[in-house]
Amino acid sequence: MTEERVLELIEQKNYIDLKKELSEMNEVDISEILNALDSSITLLIFRMLPKDTAVEVFAHFSPEQQAGIINAVSDKELKFILDELFFDDMIDLIEEMPANIVNKILANSSADERKLINQFLKYPAQSAGSLMTIEYVDLKKNMTVQEALNHIKEYGLSKETIYTCYVTDNNRKLIGIVSLRNLVVAETDKYISDILHEEVIYVETHDDQETVANIFIKYGFMALPVVDKEKRLTGIITFDDIMDVMEQEATEDFQIMAAMAPSEAAYLDSGVFELAKQRIPWLLILMIAATVTGRIITKFESLLSTMVVLTAFIPMLMNTAGNSGNQASTLIVRGLATDEVALKDAWKVLWKEFRISIIAGVFLATVNFAKNMLFDRLGLLISLTISLTVVVTVMLSKMIGGILPLIARKLKLDPAIMAGPLITTLVDALTLMAYFAIASTLLL
Amino acid sequence: MTEERVLELIEQKNYIDLKKELSEMNEVDISEILNALDSSITLLIFRMLPKDTAVEVFAHFSPEQQAGIINAVSDKELKFILDELFFDDMIDLIEEMPANIVNKILANSSADERKLINQFLKYPAQSAGSLMTIEYVDLKKNMTVQEALNHIKEYGLSKETIYTCYVTDNNRKLIGIVSLRNLVVAETDKYISDILHEEVIYVETHDDQETVANIFIKYGFMALPVVDKEKRLTGIITFDDIMDVMEQEATEDFQIMAAMAPSEAAYLDSGVFELAKQRIPWLLILMIAATVTGRIITKFESLLSTMVVLTAFIPMLMNTAGNSGNQASTLIVRGLATDEVALKDAWKVLWKEFRISIIAGVFLATVNFAKNMLFDRLGLLISLTISLTVVVTVMLSKMIGGILPLIARKLKLDPAIMAGPLITTLVDALTLMAYFAIASTLLL
Repeated sequence: MTEERVLELIEQKNYIDLKKELSEMNEVDISEILNALDSSITLLIFRMLPKDTAVEVFAHFSPEQQAGIINAVSDKELKFILDELFFDDMIDLIEEMPANIVNKILANSSADERKLINQFLKYPAQSAGSLMTIEYVDLKKNMTVQEALNHIKEYGLSKETIYTCYVTDNNRKLIGIVSLRNLVVAETDKYISDILHEEVIYVETHDDQETVANIFIKYGFMALPVVDKEKRLTGIITFDDIMDVMEQEATEDFQIMAAMAPSEAAYLDSGVFELAKQRIPWLLILMIAATVTGRIITKFESLLSTMVVLTAFIPMLMNTAGNSGNQASTLIVRGLATDEVALKDAWKVLWKEFRISIIAGVFLATVNFAKNMLFDRLGLLISLTISLTVVVTVMLSKMIGGILPLIARKLKLDPAIMAGPLITTLVDALTLMAYFAIASTLLL
Repeated sequence: MTEERVLELIEQKNYIDLKKELSEMNEVDISEILNALDSSITLLIFRMLPKDTAVEVFAHFSPEQQAGIINAVSDKELKFILDELFFDDMIDLIEEMPANIVNKILANSSADERKLINQFLKYPAQSAGSLMTIEYVDLKKNMTVQEALNHIKEYGLSKETIYTCYVTDNNRKLIGIVSLRNLVVAETDKYISDILHEEVIYVETHDDQETVANIFIKYGFMALPVVDKEKRLTGIITFDDIMDVMEQEATEDFQIMAAMAPSEAAYLDSGVFELAKQRIPWLLILMIAATVTGRIITKFESLLSTMVVLTAFIPMLMNTAGNSGNQASTLIVRGLATDEVALKDAWKVLWKEFRISIIAGVFLATVNFAKNMLFDRLGLLISLTISLTVVVTVMLSKMIGGILPLIARKLKLDPAIMAGPLITTLVDALTLMAYFAIASTLLL
């Protein structure tokens, strides 16, 4: 169904067909359509949906639509939504809403819930704690498989996942996991302690979401338990939230590497001023940083005015250096993000980039030399100057590009800021210095 | 356990502790350790593992270790491995192995299996077909819930997932899905047809893996059915394989945007020549493309030799233009990859970039003008030339950066090649032309 179809059916007051067609749709698609519609129509359709579906649709609404719904519904309706919403979605909701709506939400929560909400709101952004939810299946060691299955049958529908169940002791300490697969295939009179998997991989509430995502990717887990410092189970993270994290982390790195402030907002939904604000600071910083290259050129003005031909090769040299550096830094930034490269590999990286840069530098310089001599018909010494500069700057750029992201990681900065524009500006300056130094030596 | 600990225990011939410590490890970690060890030790440990664990460890081995194992084991052992391996892992294996090992594998497969292998090998790389596996739970409409659960109990352990079950008719046509969650909470005497979910989202064998990944992210699915043109169920794709795809697709885009040939090999595992080969072609192309900028400079040599100060601002202008273009193109490339931007948005993108570029351009030009007049103490006309060039090139760059990836998508090229270096080279040339045109007008 499309927006147009919804509006058409509403126009005709054909609510029977509307209900029927909505019931055949996935909740995500329903909320996508409603997000684009007017809030009064959204409310009308929202109330038409079966209650469970409505809550799932609500969870996928844009913050604006969520605020509209909360403002419009009765306390009783709101209580139902809040009860049915998974806890992680509830926390996300509270973080997005303005103060008056947060107050309405808190007023419709119990004291215990409010305490828990406060606790969850304190977890740092992009930490495991900020991703987890509390609706997991909690089993005990001395349950039989049949008892566990009955427990799941009773409470399973309100849990975020029932496919991995968590076994805790009386102090809420995590002692193992049992998959529903193992429960289903086990003899029903066996005990949980018989089929328990005790070697559990878990994360702590303050672990970074990138770390969490890399564990999911490495092991292919469906869910991961989150524990506090005393190893008490405080929540679980499910794979679907991690897919969002992966997408978001990659997007952030793309943005940072293209000299922008990272933003989670979708491009088409962002305002022009918002996008401009995301971009201008780095453009400004880099523009001012480029003053250095200008200074270097000014310093060698007399050399350039006697040999203007040298100027013509400045852009090529700077681009080649920038591209060489970027290649290396991008691979290292990405390797760090996916846990394929670690700090301890610094010497390996440097040695590798050293050898690659010799191959690439000599190759490019040779092509250049041939081109300069045969096509551009430049003199031997000028051709030599340009080609030597290519070798030197490709080598410098690749080694700097390889090592800077590792230095950033060491300094606990985001390695991504070291790729792209910052490297480009740095190697630009180095390239010019090398160029003029070689030219002064060979040509004067 | 670490590599050193494994070697130590083998040295001591303390196989009891070795077995015990291995049994407490995740299969992925075991294979990671064995990947780093000698193939004779790998084989020794491989045979020490419980058979089911051994196959899972095998599935995570590097191709070299897999080849070593297949060469070393008996036909009977190989048959067991092949039987237990999920079909998608088997296809991956066959694609990685040299011909003699593929022959050994095929010799140990039945005629039916060989037929199926051949069919799967034909699916295009990076298509849904190349990702799917055949080990899914197949239910029938007229089964009761109890019958379905019994079926799962019997066959569940050999399936890639049992959490989503697929209901097909007698022609293998997909008619619906049932989640294990719904089976577990349902009354056992109900029929599958009662709890069947008929509105199934599915993909076709030839759909691109990026499309598949975006469906997983959007809906948070655990598995997705793959059908052929007649809507017959041919396999399923599970979320863990999609996480790998997401990582791989992002890495590919990073590499392409940093002017490299995409490669799936990990940086530290890649040889120096391999890495050089990945990088040199684009460096070469871009170096030669930069000849154009050189030509433009040569053409305006006389202008530059009378006003050498103009040269000093070339790097700043080119960088600002390149960065501006990159910002826009990166957002659009990423938006296309995550399905947030589509071809139909071309005008919206252009209009948005037009407005952003006015804001950014005018802002940067103003700062520049103030700096040139107050700090660099340049003349009014030269300052004006530089600032006007900033406005013009920021605008050009952002609009080109926004639209080129969309043009690439339209031409069925990878939008990522339009970001980064290619845009930089293009806007470099445009920047110089604008600069010299404005300078000639204002200064001569």
